[in-house]
Amino acid sequence: MPTEFALIDAIARRAAARDDVVLGIGDDAAILSVPADRQLVVAMDTLNAGVHFPEDSLPADIGWKVLAVNLSDLAAMGARPAWCTLSLSLPASDSRWLEGFLDGFLALAARHGVALVGGDTTRGPLSVCVTAHGLVEPGRSLRRDGARIGDDVWVTGTLGDAAGALAQWRAGGDRDPALRERLDRPEPRVESGLALAGLAHAAIDVSDGLLADLDHVCSASRVGAEIAVGMLPLSPALAAAFDQGQHRALQCSGGDDYELCFTAARERRDDIAATGAGVAMTRVGRIVAGEAVSVVDEEGNPWRSPRRGFDHFEPM
Amino acid sequence: MPTEFALIDAIARRAAARDDVVLGIGDDAAILSVPADRQLVVAMDTLNAGVHFPEDSLPADIGWKVLAVNLSDLAAMGARPAWCTLSLSLPASDSRWLEGFLDGFLALAARHGVALVGGDTTRGPLSVCVTAHGLVEPGRSLRRDGARIGDDVWVTGTLGDAAGALAQWRAGGDRDPALRERLDRPEPRVESGLALAGLAHAAIDVSDGLLADLDHVCSASRVGAEIAVGMLPLSPALAAAFDQGQHRALQCSGGDDYELCFTAARERRDDIAATGAGVAMTRVGRIVAGEAVSVVDEEGNPWRSPRRGFDHFEPM
Repeated sequence: MPTEFALIDAIARRAAARDDVVLGIGDDAAILSVPADRQLVVAMDTLNAGVHFPEDSLPADIGWKVLAVNLSDLAAMGARPAWCTLSLSLPASDSRWLEGFLDGFLALAARHGVALVGGDTTRGPLSVCVTAHGLVEPGRSLRRDGARIGDDVWVTGTLGDAAGALAQWRAGGDRDPALRERLDRPEPRVESGLALAGLAHAAIDVSDGLLADLDHVCSASRVGAEIAVGMLPLSPALAAAFDQGQHRALQCSGGDDYELCFTAARERRDDIAATGAGVAMTRVGRIVAGEAVSVVDEEGNPWRSPRRGFDHFEPM
Repeated sequence: MPTEFALIDAIARRAAARDDVVLGIGDDAAILSVPADRQLVVAMDTLNAGVHFPEDSLPADIGWKVLAVNLSDLAAMGARPAWCTLSLSLPASDSRWLEGFLDGFLALAARHGVALVGGDTTRGPLSVCVTAHGLVEPGRSLRRDGARIGDDVWVTGTLGDAAGALAQWRAGGDRDPALRERLDRPEPRVESGLALAGLAHAAIDVSDGLLADLDHVCSASRVGAEIAVGMLPLSPALAAAFDQGQHRALQCSGGDDYELCFTAARERRDDIAATGAGVAMTRVGRIVAGEAVSVVDEEGNPWRSPRRGFDHFEPM
């Protein structure tokens, strides 16, 4: 059975380089060069077995996802990812599990030019923690507190797919691969976040559910929002697997999509549509005076989701 | 029972500010200003219940220790601590536990001027992960790969105390408060690390045991080392609680002391003795040609420790 140090060596051998990494894996800490004209953006998220991913998840999917949720936080700030550190708790030292995990983790890291520069491996119940570091021009970051009354509310991609996969997994019934892919391999909207820096007024990533996350934006910005449930982007897979009442609840309140929700001035509609990069941008509502997030149907009547978000202290 | 968001609010209310924190707890990520004339130093370490601390540890001690082990890594780089992020996995949302944890964590953070700027709280087996960020002048960091043949080997403070406390705890016998304090409330040698930047050639913190950690320095520097076991600094508490064979084994191979081990030129002896700041600096050996760490007794005969370090994949 490999030791802690052998596991760290196995990780170090596969970690990619970057010119701004002065010292990477293998010392007490990493040393990094931050450009003088950039601010540092830091996000940290942990995934625990049975809470954030099903126990039967593949190691490669866990590796992908733990980096994805952190890069998604950087995307929601409009930051360009640069470096990450990884803390891995494993019930037993297992080099096959580790190689699978790294396959997923490093594939996503390579896609976004992220260098793994440090961390640790320890014994414990399966848990993976990542700290992601990104860079942003001062004044161009996307925050939660910048939404203005009259702004459009937008979302990237489609909503509810990951929660649909989770609902299928819980029910033990048919599993739709297209939905499960959204749960296991979320695509952090890094390029969209970069394109929106300077365009959007406020942004957040949809990790806890659209209404819950938009509520954070509204609280921070001291505004309200009105969402048109019929405008929420819907994937063909979700439409096929659930009836309208179900899929609307998933779109409003399902977590784990890692799309961006953002607000921007009406005059920016064409600019936002042009950011593209293969990611759909859909207007779903507007920012209003007040402090609540309300949802209306096609007739303008109030629509109520049965569930307002995903609290990580609820059982999975 | 408080939700995840209530726990985060409870943490945010107690977090201290720093002028270089552009955006702290409460958004998708923190935004930080790094001075143009400094490099960023990043360390990440996790503590799991039953592996890194006894199950009966007080929440305040766990909070102190998880920050201490990370600040110790920054100290071993000669970096000045600035910011940290915290990921907390708790079996159940428990605001009393959290307040106790923060008492210890924030007391140590305040002592070193560290701002807690983000992280997450999740449900899971008790586990705490911290990423610590520090700053260092380019070229003045202390690395593992700078030891030179002829250097003295030094350590700060005293060795073996934390391992002595752990041995007492395992045996279920008398517990010495002075030793237990070293296990539960290690003092990261931040000021010593700062004073040694520019003086020492190489440094590491003693987390896995002196011989194991010095071996990392020797491997990275492609040198060997000779340690005089009789010169290893010994606390009165360790001397009183264990016989000579036992306390020497603990001093050589016991983990969790979080003292610094460093190498420096002979000509720097007076400068190093003068760094002081209330922390003893003891010469314990020298760097030699070769690749092994050897230990000799007072007669110059080889001395063998029964145990070469602390591997976090061994049971506690």
